[in-house]
Amino acid sequence: MSQFQEILKELGTLDVSRLYKNDFFLTWGKTDQEIAGVFAVADALRDLRERNISARIFDSGLGISLFRDNSTRTRFSFASACNLLGLEVQDLDEGKSQIAHGETVRETANMISFMADVIGIRDDMYIGKGHTYMQSVADAVAEGYRDGVLEQRPTLVNLQCDIDHPTQCMADMLHIIHEFGGVENLKGKKVAMTWAYSPSYGKPLSVPQGVIGLMTRFGMDVVLAHPEGYEVMPEVEEVARQNARRSGGTFTKTNSMAEAFAGADIVYPKSWAPFAAMEKRTELYAVGDSAGIQALEKELLEQNARHKDWCCTEELMKTTREGRALYLHCLPADINGVSCVEGEVEAGVFDRYRTPLYREASFKPYIIAAMIFLAQCEKPVEMLRELERRGRVRRKK
Amino acid sequence: MSQFQEILKELGTLDVSRLYKNDFFLTWGKTDQEIAGVFAVADALRDLRERNISARIFDSGLGISLFRDNSTRTRFSFASACNLLGLEVQDLDEGKSQIAHGETVRETANMISFMADVIGIRDDMYIGKGHTYMQSVADAVAEGYRDGVLEQRPTLVNLQCDIDHPTQCMADMLHIIHEFGGVENLKGKKVAMTWAYSPSYGKPLSVPQGVIGLMTRFGMDVVLAHPEGYEVMPEVEEVARQNARRSGGTFTKTNSMAEAFAGADIVYPKSWAPFAAMEKRTELYAVGDSAGIQALEKELLEQNARHKDWCCTEELMKTTREGRALYLHCLPADINGVSCVEGEVEAGVFDRYRTPLYREASFKPYIIAAMIFLAQCEKPVEMLRELERRGRVRRKK
Amino acid sequence: MSQFQEILKELGTLDVSRLYKNDFFLTWGKTDQEIAGVFAVADALRDLRERNISARIFDSGLGISLFRDNSTRTRFSFASACNLLGLEVQDLDEGKSQIAHGETVRETANMISFMADVIGIRDDMYIGKGHTYMQSVADAVAEGYRDGVLEQRPTLVNLQCDIDHPTQCMADMLHIIHEFGGVENLKGKKVAMTWAYSPSYGKPLSVPQGVIGLMTRFGMDVVLAHPEGYEVMPEVEEVARQNARRSGGTFTKTNSMAEAFAGADIVYPKSWAPFAAMEKRTELYAVGDSAGIQALEKELLEQNARHKDWCCTEELMKTTREGRALYLHCLPADINGVSCVEGEVEAGVFDRYRTPLYREASFKPYIIAAMIFLAQCEKPVEMLRELERRGRVRRKK
Repeated sequence: MSQFQEILKELGTLDVSRLYKNDFFLTWGKTDQEIAGVFAVADALRDLRERNISARIFDSGLGISLFRDNSTRTRFSFASACNLLGLEVQDLDEGKSQIAHGETVRETANMISFMADVIGIRDDMYIGKGHTYMQSVADAVAEGYRDGVLEQRPTLVNLQCDIDHPTQCMADMLHIIHEFGGVENLKGKKVAMTWAYSPSYGKPLSVPQGVIGLMTRFGMDVVLAHPEGYEVMPEVEEVARQNARRSGGTFTKTNSMAEAFAGADIVYPKSWAPFAAMEKRTELYAVGDSAGIQALEKELLEQNARHKDWCCTEELMKTTREGRALYLHCLPADINGVSCVEGEVEAGVFDRYRTPLYREASFKPYIIAAMIFLAQCEKPVEMLRELERRGRVRRKK
Repeated sequence: MSQFQEILKELGTLDVSRLYKNDFFLTWGKTDQEIAGVFAVADALRDLRERNISARIFDSGLGISLFRDNSTRTRFSFASACNLLGLEVQDLDEGKSQIAHGETVRETANMISFMADVIGIRDDMYIGKGHTYMQSVADAVAEGYRDGVLEQRPTLVNLQCDIDHPTQCMADMLHIIHEFGGVENLKGKKVAMTWAYSPSYGKPLSVPQGVIGLMTRFGMDVVLAHPEGYEVMPEVEEVARQNARRSGGTFTKTNSMAEAFAGADIVYPKSWAPFAAMEKRTELYAVGDSAGIQALEKELLEQNARHKDWCCTEELMKTTREGRALYLHCLPADINGVSCVEGEVEAGVFDRYRTPLYREASFKPYIIAAMIFLAQCEKPVEMLRELERRGRVRRKK
Repeated sequence: MSQFQEILKELGTLDVSRLYKNDFFLTWGKTDQEIAGVFAVADALRDLRERNISARIFDSGLGISLFRDNSTRTRFSFASACNLLGLEVQDLDEGKSQIAHGETVRETANMISFMADVIGIRDDMYIGKGHTYMQSVADAVAEGYRDGVLEQRPTLVNLQCDIDHPTQCMADMLHIIHEFGGVENLKGKKVAMTWAYSPSYGKPLSVPQGVIGLMTRFGMDVVLAHPEGYEVMPEVEEVARQNARRSGGTFTKTNSMAEAFAGADIVYPKSWAPFAAMEKRTELYAVGDSAGIQALEKELLEQNARHKDWCCTEELMKTTREGRALYLHCLPADINGVSCVEGEVEAGVFDRYRTPLYREASFKPYIIAAMIFLAQCEKPVEMLRELERRGRVRRKK
């Protein structure tokens, strides 16, 4: 049986019905079967493309992207996913738009969505803001659809919020599944999600939170390591604990990077800002206290600087399972002597893992496409089978 | 007979031949049959899309948008219209472009149009400038087409100029037609196009001018109301007068909002700047007199502030026909206590009409698409029939 | 035999195999047959489009553009070429992107290319930088393709670098071929590539270099004329010399515009900055010496001003072959009394040649599309024949 047939067979066993006409905010808002369904569809879409078979399900339609922060990879991953399915991307640049002119979110959401099948939003700057904003956009277009204002209900895809980064973490996870030869081989594997030093400050918490919120679902032993004071959101830690209990894995915390790396099968060393500090920062921005913001930045940079020893060194890598743990990063990484003097990882380690790191990133467009696909197609197995049967050539050669 | 067949039947009775290979600048440059034709095609395209039938008439091609002012709704309406017909949008951002480098309009117009089927322009900032600019762009590409430089003649669509806002006002009008169950039910209906207070200054006149220039064509009694000193362009008032005479309706003016609202079937309370002031502002910008501009702004804001009583209140709404006039706005509105302290409309009124307001806006992409369609297709009835016959699925489900 | 059949017949005689899965950096990196192949495919694609036959070879896919300088014509030419072939353009705006955040070129190149079939780059600002940058991007994606990170190998197209401007110069050349009724009529024709005065400073050398590097391949007598001190890159002059020798033409230099124009069949009067000065400027930028940069600008403008007599006048045009040489320019030109007081050309000359100049520019989208087509299609003749056979309508009428 071809790989494609096997994927469809597995997908057929999963209940993904609740993903249809639904949005994707947080991985822990989805069932294990739904998460598995996204992975299966991502693999199926990739298999089709690798066989030069078009996966266009849209003859026309718009995919709207809204980025409240600079972005290369996520922007292009979203554009690639939309293009793969046949949607044209339109950026809602709030500079150009009238949102600045006091327009309400509800109104704008509807005004841009008359022919939108998807809305992708990245809003990770302020704690307690991004997720809420996405929710209000999704509610607005759902209401517009109910009221007959919109002919279709646009799917909202969270391209990174203050709480979770589902497209990144699911790409990371699918990469792991492929590297380990299947989800069935993950039980008991040790994952070290650890903080690492960065000369820059205020990096979002959505990656470590997304990782512990997702990777604890597969029966693995997930360790969250960071210096004291770099705690993540307690609610997400609670999610991780419950996931671990349900999946037969564990979720533990430590303030020692070495302890986390010891015997690890997978390591994810990455910098982030303390949750408490991000909360404070959000309040300071709310009141426009720029002096306070600068003071906080200075304080945080000094705090970071006290932990320069939190670096993914060759030495530390040697302590992992057979010295060959899978090194993960969402990129770009702060590489010692390359993008900074001292940072998250030694150049030697990064270089050795470059190709796997790029492959890790290559799953993101397919994860996003799969989220859209499952929200738009009521019968995904039949649809995928029909796309193969249709056999439309993606690129004439 | 299906709705679609009825629309085609009506469209078949209209002479729209002069729209073919032509541009769309001002509604009053078009005949009643041509205006009716745009409405019919807009309804037909919407009917096709609601039945998930693709309206793509382009396999490839570009739709170029040029916005000289911030814009959300118009930008996305144009993008939606282009996408519906199969054109990819390319923004001509004059920041990025070399127009700044002293390039002539004629040259740029041709350089961007080698594969352009449509050019949409919004240029509403300066009195006497926008319309003229669009004309010169249209003349340039028409010449380029004649000289064999361009393989196709791009259609120019006015997305708002200093004189008219045809895509907005025709969307407003099509909304009215649907709300009143057909154009045949509009004779004798009273429309109140009235000024309203806004804390912001210098809002374009193109909406009130477009409204009186269009809505006087349907045998309605159109009242233009504003405080003294907020006159619109006299030429457009003259157009309205002639339209009213021809259509068997009336066009009257008043300086009383109450008088305009009394017994009205439709109300359109919206702020705009005095024509004379906009002329003065244009001159000040021309000579770069920033002190003069600031003085003028201050003066205009003070002038506005003397008319805060010009607000669409619940009380005023009660005085309309059965207290249930159709409330219109091009959005975004200045809503009391929402987007401003005191503004154009009370929150209660706005909330009650939110869904109709969004539906009003939802016609704009179809109006733009219809303008393009009629400029590109010599036999619109046959083409629409063929699109239905072809029955290409817009979104696979 | 139809024009199209003739083009295919000629294309069939050319060895263009090395263009397949390859990039386009410099015209002198390609054989005469490869250059002829690009011209043939450009003509074939234009012929298809003029017959309203779609040339889409991509059902979906991205064309990525990266402009490090303002651009209208090249930006739209690239967008048009991509659209013609079925690719959706995504701009990599380094403002928006994280390249600014110290991300390496190699990483970014792969991150944006997961579904990219083409990458077009314009980077002409700094001597010794642009070409090198493009090479590193091409190497990065080629490696990513080899390593299985990318499913396809994106084609890199040089949209202007510090050394050459192949899409411009090949469009200029194809225009010449058409104006003179075929490449076989070019032997012995005199081409004057001459410097001209401009009030602006620091114009790139890539056009004059590209012209002498390409036009010397056709047995013509190419004269490079400029005031002392405005030398171009010696390596490129050497390329021109060798080309002339091989093609049976000549390449000569002079410091007299009159001498260059005398009896010329083709004139290309255009301003550029001295190579040595551009090298110095690059160094000053490298060390961020803004005072030095300003001093250099001042010095260069003064140097330019000493050569205001280098202008394409009616008088000079009279001295060309029968007074009717073909006037070329990449546009926009500095036109006396139009875009500047004194500049590269008299308004009378420019006006007389406007339509030919626009036609010259109209070849660029097809040249770019041909470069992409030949890099993507292993059997271009068969593919073009199949596109004609398929006969898909580009625009329904």
